[in-house]
Amino acid sequence: MLVFIHHSGTANFYYATGIKLESSYHAVGKKLDILIVPDMEKERAIKGSRVKEVLSYSEIGYHERRKDMDARSAFVESLKVFLKEKGVKKVQIPPDFPAYIALGLKGFDVQVVDNPFSKKRAVKTAEELEKIRETCKATVDAFEFLKGIVKKGRSCEELREAVELFLFQKGFIARNTIVASSKLTALPHFIGEGEVEGHVIVDIFPKSRKHGYYADFTRTILIEPEPEIEEMLKVVIEAKQRGIAVIREGITCREVHNAVCEVIESYGYHTLRNKAKEGFIHSTGHGVGLEVHEEPKIFESDDELRKGMVFTVEPGLYYKNVGGVRVEDTVVVKKGGCEILTSYPDWVRA
Amino acid sequence: MLVFIHHSGTANFYYATGIKLESSYHAVGKKLDILIVPDMEKERAIKGSRVKEVLSYSEIGYHERRKDMDARSAFVESLKVFLKEKGVKKVQIPPDFPAYIALGLKGFDVQVVDNPFSKKRAVKTAEELEKIRETCKATVDAFEFLKGIVKKGRSCEELREAVELFLFQKGFIARNTIVASSKLTALPHFIGEGEVEGHVIVDIFPKSRKHGYYADFTRTILIEPEPEIEEMLKVVIEAKQRGIAVIREGITCREVHNAVCEVIESYGYHTLRNKAKEGFIHSTGHGVGLEVHEEPKIFESDDELRKGMVFTVEPGLYYKNVGGVRVEDTVVVKKGGCEILTSYPDWVRA
Repeated sequence: MLVFIHHSGTANFYYATGIKLESSYHAVGKKLDILIVPDMEKERAIKGSRVKEVLSYSEIGYHERRKDMDARSAFVESLKVFLKEKGVKKVQIPPDFPAYIALGLKGFDVQVVDNPFSKKRAVKTAEELEKIRETCKATVDAFEFLKGIVKKGRSCEELREAVELFLFQKGFIARNTIVASSKLTALPHFIGEGEVEGHVIVDIFPKSRKHGYYADFTRTILIEPEPEIEEMLKVVIEAKQRGIAVIREGITCREVHNAVCEVIESYGYHTLRNKAKEGFIHSTGHGVGLEVHEEPKIFESDDELRKGMVFTVEPGLYYKNVGGVRVEDTVVVKKGGCEILTSYPDWVRA
Repeated sequence: MLVFIHHSGTANFYYATGIKLESSYHAVGKKLDILIVPDMEKERAIKGSRVKEVLSYSEIGYHERRKDMDARSAFVESLKVFLKEKGVKKVQIPPDFPAYIALGLKGFDVQVVDNPFSKKRAVKTAEELEKIRETCKATVDAFEFLKGIVKKGRSCEELREAVELFLFQKGFIARNTIVASSKLTALPHFIGEGEVEGHVIVDIFPKSRKHGYYADFTRTILIEPEPEIEEMLKVVIEAKQRGIAVIREGITCREVHNAVCEVIESYGYHTLRNKAKEGFIHSTGHGVGLEVHEEPKIFESDDELRKGMVFTVEPGLYYKNVGGVRVEDTVVVKKGGCEILTSYPDWVRA
């Protein structure tokens, strides 16, 4: 028999089981759906998880074995006996599965596979979509708040602090919110520091403190006249709109990425398609859900978009000597198109 | 040659390298101290980390190999070639190392070991201690704030929200703060719900949003007369004080745990030493630093306390039909004793 085992502490585990636990394992197969949890968590696991069968460490013989061996050996041995008794011969594990167990499963055919729940999570249920909508709404509200207080001379640090506090008060947690200005915006991942001048990239990606679902949203705010930045922003806005226009069930991730790149290249800017070191130097987007980066990757893949997938479309342009711009929306795929979940004007001037 | 490799995304990696990265690896040995990072992080890694040598994925041949194979195989192959060129024969990895790499390192002598940085982190530098002091101070302030607003009939949920917002405003992030009341306090890990009645356990363990260091602090607030709870609290306070009194450099974790258990048992209550299912059903404490639970474990181990270790002393008593109580301080070990970092009266009445 074949069984897939993954470990607690990951979004996939939470998604698959409906509960957050520590030091726990979820084994799933055709005839198997079992949680293995520390003794003191058994009651909570039975009440709080979707998984029907829950076994404690004691019930797989861990504490008995612990008398004669170290903790890791005792756990691996207990797991092996449990699997053998269930008739398991082949064990699939995700790439990030703990090495000590993977190496300890001698006598089994151990195979590393993509976590099947990653793929499943890409398509959101109606319930999940409602949660993401909630976070998207708070995100846009937070941006509107920030737009009201941003001005030349204020520090990126105080603006980040203000917007993160605004979100916390509404029940969301945002960390490393990008509030970056001046030429420092040329580094896509730089969270920003120093005084506001020229323009500001605001990239907000909070999660709900209640249900854990994220949103992701970026706008570039124009503060002072910067013709080159405005020209880049015009192109990036058009690229984002074009990307969003082609999204519908059945087309591939690559087609969305290509649509975005074509607009950018048509204005003479470079993209990763022509190995740019400056220009549009990242992918078009990524799935958003229980993690801020999840499936699908909107890049060079032939994976098809499916109804209910939620992801970002976020072209940007980055030049060390000029600065960077980016606009980003979170969208949900529909049958014949998509819906923007972070609806907000693309052009923003403070 | 022997090398230890660990991966990003863990407190140990951050501690060892001084930087937070994604999909990165730190290889350390007698003649080796190298970071392997995604190409776009190289600049940031050079500037921001303590590690002198930084190699990008491209520089170990990942992107070249990626043309002919999947991402995981390309990375494992690149790592193997890198290690061979360095003359490495034996590779040590921590228990939570990604399975796909551990299983892929064929031809090397792969050994799972405790992460050496876990042990190192247990003893705090003066700089780390200052950071922990800062978080301890905010934690006690937050408790004082909560004490001012707690009263019968208010909900545990709103109190938790209020104290977490208080901390966020001061630059700290607290999650799952325990504000539990009534008989529901009999579950040590239950965060609490419903109206305040009888007594309240408040267990606050925030981390600094600036530097990431935690504190951990618990008091039981008496709201209404509950003679059994008061008696239990008296014992637990005495046990905590006794535990703290025996702490000094050179004694073992077990000796601290035993000192605490002896007080509890002397009043006729049960502990884990006599296999209690109710009573004092957890360990005496745990290290506090970049993680809220880290080394040392103050339980049944013969590890010796060392000057600069920071950990909690947190006896509790839990009975389903009565409820639970707990008091907890974070302390730092000194040569001939210890210092309480969360100094606050043990008896609290609202």
